[in-house]
Amino acid sequence: MAKTESYPLHGGQLQQIAERFGIPVTQLLDFSANINPDGPPSSVLSTLRASLDDPSALTEYPDLQLTEIKQAIASYARVDTRNITVANGFVPLLEAVLRALPIRRCLLPVPAFVEYRKTLGRGGVEIAPYALDPDSNFKYDPAAMVAADQDAVLLANPQNPSGICHDGALIRDLVVRASKKKQYILLDEAFIDYVPEHSLTAETDEFSNLIVFRSVTKFHGVPGLRVAYAVAHRSLSLSIGDSVPPWPVTTLASRAVSAALNDQPYADRTRARNIDRRNSLQHELEQLGLLAYPSSANFILFRLCARIDPNLFWQHMIVEHGIVLRACTNYEGLPKGFFRAAVRTEEENSRLIEALIETLFSLAPDRK
Amino acid sequence: MAKTESYPLHGGQLQQIAERFGIPVTQLLDFSANINPDGPPSSVLSTLRASLDDPSALTEYPDLQLTEIKQAIASYARVDTRNITVANGFVPLLEAVLRALPIRRCLLPVPAFVEYRKTLGRGGVEIAPYALDPDSNFKYDPAAMVAADQDAVLLANPQNPSGICHDGALIRDLVVRASKKKQYILLDEAFIDYVPEHSLTAETDEFSNLIVFRSVTKFHGVPGLRVAYAVAHRSLSLSIGDSVPPWPVTTLASRAVSAALNDQPYADRTRARNIDRRNSLQHELEQLGLLAYPSSANFILFRLCARIDPNLFWQHMIVEHGIVLRACTNYEGLPKGFFRAAVRTEEENSRLIEALIETLFSLAPDRK
Repeated sequence: MAKTESYPLHGGQLQQIAERFGIPVTQLLDFSANINPDGPPSSVLSTLRASLDDPSALTEYPDLQLTEIKQAIASYARVDTRNITVANGFVPLLEAVLRALPIRRCLLPVPAFVEYRKTLGRGGVEIAPYALDPDSNFKYDPAAMVAADQDAVLLANPQNPSGICHDGALIRDLVVRASKKKQYILLDEAFIDYVPEHSLTAETDEFSNLIVFRSVTKFHGVPGLRVAYAVAHRSLSLSIGDSVPPWPVTTLASRAVSAALNDQPYADRTRARNIDRRNSLQHELEQLGLLAYPSSANFILFRLCARIDPNLFWQHMIVEHGIVLRACTNYEGLPKGFFRAAVRTEEENSRLIEALIETLFSLAPDRK
Repeated sequence: MAKTESYPLHGGQLQQIAERFGIPVTQLLDFSANINPDGPPSSVLSTLRASLDDPSALTEYPDLQLTEIKQAIASYARVDTRNITVANGFVPLLEAVLRALPIRRCLLPVPAFVEYRKTLGRGGVEIAPYALDPDSNFKYDPAAMVAADQDAVLLANPQNPSGICHDGALIRDLVVRASKKKQYILLDEAFIDYVPEHSLTAETDEFSNLIVFRSVTKFHGVPGLRVAYAVAHRSLSLSIGDSVPPWPVTTLASRAVSAALNDQPYADRTRARNIDRRNSLQHELEQLGLLAYPSSANFILFRLCARIDPNLFWQHMIVEHGIVLRACTNYEGLPKGFFRAAVRTEEENSRLIEALIETLFSLAPDRK
């Protein structure tokens, strides 16, 4: 039987897996983290190389960097710089929001990113978990979600780990309902870059109860650089910004990320490729009889049939095929047997499917 | 008369000054930030260049980086990796400590780094300011400092802005006294690298009420990379580490800082040069009739004679000489007329002295 403590807390923790199974990390293929498989735009590397010829990138505090990166974000996300707060990840931004706003009790739809609960807990926020139904595609119900006695709702669109994207209009309805009840909507759009038409960033000037969190990590392929941002009403943005520690991002990261955000062809290409690859992978997973959820992001959640032991399955994929899936065991409110697979390149996705075929065949109970 | 709001909040905010006075930033010489004037060790640049040839520096989460950088810190600061917490600056570390420990009321000796009060305030901590006496060289009094009804004392050694270093034995006495009263000592050793013999990092395994904060920013000349660390008893370290957001430092910063910390000849050279330069600068400031405090760090606090208007002095130094001093107007508990000057290279320090001679002569009241 699977034990939660035997799985990494996050995707992408390959070293931990390599050590546990005695496999060199270079022989593992990581489907557990949701990073753009084509890597960052070339402008990231050229910008970083150029920055190393300018000593001020190292020897000065990154005072000017927030101005540069906010301008790049403003242009990319089509908002005003005054709506933007920048930090070195989603968690520091959520921490700043919890310091700046009077949030004591928060509704938390689950399953959700494990850091939501940890960060709310550290911030002294009482959590009211709200179970989403896997059999209804984890659907959000705006009326039900704002009914409770709470100060905020923390949710993601697209969701993680399901990849399911709700229509922007439905999320907007949730914001309107919450506004009437004086509740904040904390909306994690970490994967909205794949479906930007559903983003609510442009609505933040209309709603003073909406805070949108976005990431540069995944879509632009630079998790090593640590940059995320929040978009909110200008009045809120001032308070949130005051709660972020000074100089939150490095000069190198700021310059590189600004270059990445300004690369529109890269973004278009990333979206187009991801749709093709994801559709193909989704189709193949279904051909194998796996229940795969309809994702709008760069990963797919699927469920094993109940007759296969999830822990044996996960280990077999690693030991026999060097393929690391995200075992979703530590996602609150998710029954056992769920796995998340990143959408990678065509060749890598084929390796995943071949490994799945062999593994499902090997572990099928009627073979024993 | 000087208005506080007309001064930058921190040292090093040159762009703000350039814009205000209409002077190109390249024509300003910054004595307001306390960064190693010789720049970082060459290993920093070579490590960064090499890292750009390895895509994983960008495309993977910095999971392994904390292990690498903790090993470098452990060797540099002579502590065990289990005593270390790493984050992207002092403020995130103090925030983590305030989340992890039951600190409701904190004694704050002033003058002190402006971020102390801001961070304690954001963390909901009640602040009991404790005025240090400029006429007694801002001397700490351990018996008096632990007497009050408080949970912690937040102090620096060497102090900022005075540069004064208290003997390690006196700080240890403070820790012992605080331990008996169940009070925490939050000790900022951001500038202790200049006088490492007075550091208390090695005592953290003995005292479970001591948290030491250290910086890589100033001494190693890399404020753009955002790395700091806390050293504490192993049991405390676990709690503090749990309160730090995941992946706090970038992969590039971690690798570069590890290289810097491993460069012992650089550290020895930095200390030796700083002593020579600081002694010389101190001597020259005193020759000009300025009251200069005996610093152990890479900056010197001095006081103008009362007959010269501090605001006119600060502006004259910028407008006529392009030299930016740290006006200490926004340091709580410091009378007016205090300025802090970084110790820079011999040539730059000479420029400072020549500018001071002209400025003091121009503004002397008996010339009017």
